[in-house]
Amino acid sequence: MISANSRKRDSARMQVRRYVMDLLWQHAGEAYHLPSNKELADELGIARSTAQLELKLLIEEGYLTAKHGVGTFTVPSKMQQFRAPLIGILNGDGKTIYEPFYIVSLKSHTATELAKQPALIQEIRLFSERENDLATELRGIDCNALVCFNVSSAMEPVLRETRKFRPVITVDMRIDGIPSVELDRREKGRALGRALLAENRTNVLFIQSERYRATTFLGVRDVFTEAGHTLPDECFLLNTTEGLSELLESGFHPQAVAPSLETFEEAAQILREHDIDLNEKCRLATFMFKPRKMQEPVLLFDFPFEEFGRQTAKVVSRLLENPDQEAEHIVFKHNYKTTVV
Amino acid sequence: MISANSRKRDSARMQVRRYVMDLLWQHAGEAYHLPSNKELADELGIARSTAQLELKLLIEEGYLTAKHGVGTFTVPSKMQQFRAPLIGILNGDGKTIYEPFYIVSLKSHTATELAKQPALIQEIRLFSERENDLATELRGIDCNALVCFNVSSAMEPVLRETRKFRPVITVDMRIDGIPSVELDRREKGRALGRALLAENRTNVLFIQSERYRATTFLGVRDVFTEAGHTLPDECFLLNTTEGLSELLESGFHPQAVAPSLETFEEAAQILREHDIDLNEKCRLATFMFKPRKMQEPVLLFDFPFEEFGRQTAKVVSRLLENPDQEAEHIVFKHNYKTTVV
Repeated sequence: MISANSRKRDSARMQVRRYVMDLLWQHAGEAYHLPSNKELADELGIARSTAQLELKLLIEEGYLTAKHGVGTFTVPSKMQQFRAPLIGILNGDGKTIYEPFYIVSLKSHTATELAKQPALIQEIRLFSERENDLATELRGIDCNALVCFNVSSAMEPVLRETRKFRPVITVDMRIDGIPSVELDRREKGRALGRALLAENRTNVLFIQSERYRATTFLGVRDVFTEAGHTLPDECFLLNTTEGLSELLESGFHPQAVAPSLETFEEAAQILREHDIDLNEKCRLATFMFKPRKMQEPVLLFDFPFEEFGRQTAKVVSRLLENPDQEAEHIVFKHNYKTTVV
Repeated sequence: MISANSRKRDSARMQVRRYVMDLLWQHAGEAYHLPSNKELADELGIARSTAQLELKLLIEEGYLTAKHGVGTFTVPSKMQQFRAPLIGILNGDGKTIYEPFYIVSLKSHTATELAKQPALIQEIRLFSERENDLATELRGIDCNALVCFNVSSAMEPVLRETRKFRPVITVDMRIDGIPSVELDRREKGRALGRALLAENRTNVLFIQSERYRATTFLGVRDVFTEAGHTLPDECFLLNTTEGLSELLESGFHPQAVAPSLETFEEAAQILREHDIDLNEKCRLATFMFKPRKMQEPVLLFDFPFEEFGRQTAKVVSRLLENPDQEAEHIVFKHNYKTTVV
């Protein structure tokens, strides 16, 4: 019931917004006198308080101006900004609360590049639970294109439905029938492999999600195999430090460890506790960042967040011009730079 | 009423989250068996559906794991991530829907730098209307620090109240008693002035908000005055293209125009309509970006979004270590690079 309320509320406010935006279009260059709050609420069949709330926001945002004792008017000079497309950003099911570096950075760089269209950007929060409700809720959001991150399998049918009404694109993953932008992660693995071999580090350990076994890990293996080194499956832990202690106690002494963002500091701590020298004998490697308080050097790769954003902005730009074009799946490469910091 | 519902809902979910996070702390290194859904809901005095929803999210986020037929358990390996501070990002009154480039980019770069703490980031949406309700709502949000953008005068007392309970910082503006990070905009104006004089452009026009009259504009004037040029007040339009046509028709032929983000394309169009040559005789200047479809060259300055983020992250880092330290107000300079693109 609460979800339904939130949804209804968003949708009523959106009606007001759309109404005002239409007026701005229809009366371009003219300060158009809006109907009264009551008339507007009656016309749209919504609560007066909701109409008032959204009009107040539109005044704050400069689309409308209130002249005391006279009424509310459109602001013609805001037309230019309005002509900018509205782009929605959706992370997962729209309900995530706190987010870690990778998704914050990926979303941020993409939003920034999209805004250079120029476009106006909204991060979408969803309240519905069921597939049909989610699709209806998404359809009710006023936007010209939807850019999605971290899509779960439950959201796939919702996005397919949404795609019938407006352009949808997925970033950093691929769903059939929906345009996407991805990084060539096998190439990323090759870059990691080359950097490790350049330092003569052949005894290496990865702590990553299953997903990377079929991508980054294979790239590292390519390079290692070409150089005559083997990379057994035991070198790959599934995004947890469980088992790391046992591995170290069994006599495995890695010359390099590439933990995931989530396991980075914990892995470092466990390695230290087992007297692994992280200053020289063993090198921590990451594509993310060096945590502020870490003393030991880290092999840092530049992850192409900005390029992700630029590639996505290009695809969205083409989709806005031609929403019906066939889904294109972009897989881009990056020329990685490494530093020991 | 709807606001109250949304607020209550968020707060009940937050109770569950805090409950689980506390368990993770108290039972570090242990897979702790959670009480049943019903017991948990009764204990917290919330709806069972709400408890269920949040537990489901915590399972998806990896903090909990559900063992079929046995129950729900904490995931000890998630402790590391949990130990990261939670940082809230607040734009304006937390109700903005669509946002333009400047605020998207500023927020994005700040969030990215904050996440490198490492920290978990939440963009906060607020539902309350009145000052007291807003303060209560903000207090109910589980975060270790609050980073605010675009603060309106109505939000100032709310932030002062919030500051009693956790660190608060404002970015790109200053409120007495609350730590802040700002750019030295007068220095930014000097950089703009020097770049214009280097191209012998002394007849210039600014279309900016009132705020910049006292900052950027004064910087340009510094440099122009030193070089023996005057910069009359008529060279400054208040963030609107209204009056631009009249100015051009009155015989004013600018050699450079620095429009705001919102007026950029409209100003360019009006200049073209008045046969002002934007390729050479008149130069458009911006600290933001060149719009995708613009043909003419633009004098582009690099705006220090990343440095804004780094400076903010540093202050937040110090506040997290010592929440009671006196409010510091950082004003930083930037070494601007210009390109004609």
